[in-house]
Amino acid sequence: MRIDIITVSPDLIKSPFEHSIIKRAIDKGLVDVHFHDLRKYALNKYGKIDDYQFGGGAGMVLMIEPIATCIADLQDERNYDEIIYMTPDAKTLNQQTANTLSLKENIIILTGHYKGVDQRVRDKFITKEISIGDYVLSGGELAAAVLCDAVIRLIPGVLGDETSALTDSYQDNLLSPPVYTRPSEYEGMKVPDILLSGNFPKIDEWRADKALEHTKNIRPDLLENKD
Amino acid sequence: MRIDIITVSPDLIKSPFEHSIIKRAIDKGLVDVHFHDLRKYALNKYGKIDDYQFGGGAGMVLMIEPIATCIADLQDERNYDEIIYMTPDAKTLNQQTANTLSLKENIIILTGHYKGVDQRVRDKFITKEISIGDYVLSGGELAAAVLCDAVIRLIPGVLGDETSALTDSYQDNLLSPPVYTRPSEYEGMKVPDILLSGNFPKIDEWRADKALEHTKNIRPDLLENKD
Repeated sequence: MRIDIITVSPDLIKSPFEHSIIKRAIDKGLVDVHFHDLRKYALNKYGKIDDYQFGGGAGMVLMIEPIATCIADLQDERNYDEIIYMTPDAKTLNQQTANTLSLKENIIILTGHYKGVDQRVRDKFITKEISIGDYVLSGGELAAAVLCDAVIRLIPGVLGDETSALTDSYQDNLLSPPVYTRPSEYEGMKVPDILLSGNFPKIDEWRADKALEHTKNIRPDLLENKD
Repeated sequence: MRIDIITVSPDLIKSPFEHSIIKRAIDKGLVDVHFHDLRKYALNKYGKIDDYQFGGGAGMVLMIEPIATCIADLQDERNYDEIIYMTPDAKTLNQQTANTLSLKENIIILTGHYKGVDQRVRDKFITKEISIGDYVLSGGELAAAVLCDAVIRLIPGVLGDETSALTDSYQDNLLSPPVYTRPSEYEGMKVPDILLSGNFPKIDEWRADKALEHTKNIRPDLLENKD
């Protein structure tokens, strides 16, 4: 899989790609991530890539021309399955979307900044708009990093143990049951006896019960979508 | 405001704090962010901070003792308003939560990794659990960075123009209307006439209509919560 990220601040999101699971996926050749600094596609030598919005109002808007040039350069090299724009004005990312995207070959991710991009960019180029949640960030860079992390860890071979992703929260619309590790007692707080029993069918049952109970308490809305 | 982030991978999330709006907020002294490497609180010289989960299953669990020591050290220095754990098993971050947290003085953010933390950490220390969305990440570090970004930009004085945050999506449970900047025509695609009219009351009306229309199309659920 190849991911091209078009951004105003490539340095802002580099560190998540240089550590931990994403780095290992890159090192293994399972994913190839490229950053494109939008300022290199600026209209003039001053690096102009944004301007005031028509009709007035606070905040700068990213112009269509630098973005169009950057996308055209990438499309000259290969076909893209999706050109994604990260914006709070979109459907929210969920695990199903992450699963779907993990099967794609080439994707472009455009990150907004300031007040976002000229609407014509969205009308002309963008095939999918994704929000990572109902809150506003100072730019789309972190949102792009979050999307990449959610997607990349699902690519087969990225996680050491395949079952590790399958038992995550959300893969089955249930939150995870509680987990415990050593010591079995800490300042009077004990690990539930069942987990120390070695009775694995009973442990599975306990975990399923706890997952359901936890989901009912914290996120009952998830159960409405459960088949 | 002071934010202490307890993490297995401090380097993974450093870059978002070294650029753009968060960096400016730190440089201005409006927020103070400290990273604490959990491995420094390890139980032995091999840096042991995690172990297998009781009852079996894939994935390592962060142990309570290193976390307890780190939190105790911080609490010796000052009082904390919240000790937050980033986890997909929690209520989802929204703009209201970000607003509330932006008024706090001192917060600790604990980021999970691998299969998460021993449940007793959550029972004993954590005052608030936050998920950034219905998807799984390889660790809580990016989630912590997202939370910090959403919160820090709301601290008065951080954004250059105060109105810039107030007109964001979600502050009024509506998505933003489309924005346009120069050129007024690009490959036959024109900016809507109304935005070039100079009739600001009409422009405001158009934007309100578009915001409502956009919200109805993309996120009708937001309108149910609107007063």
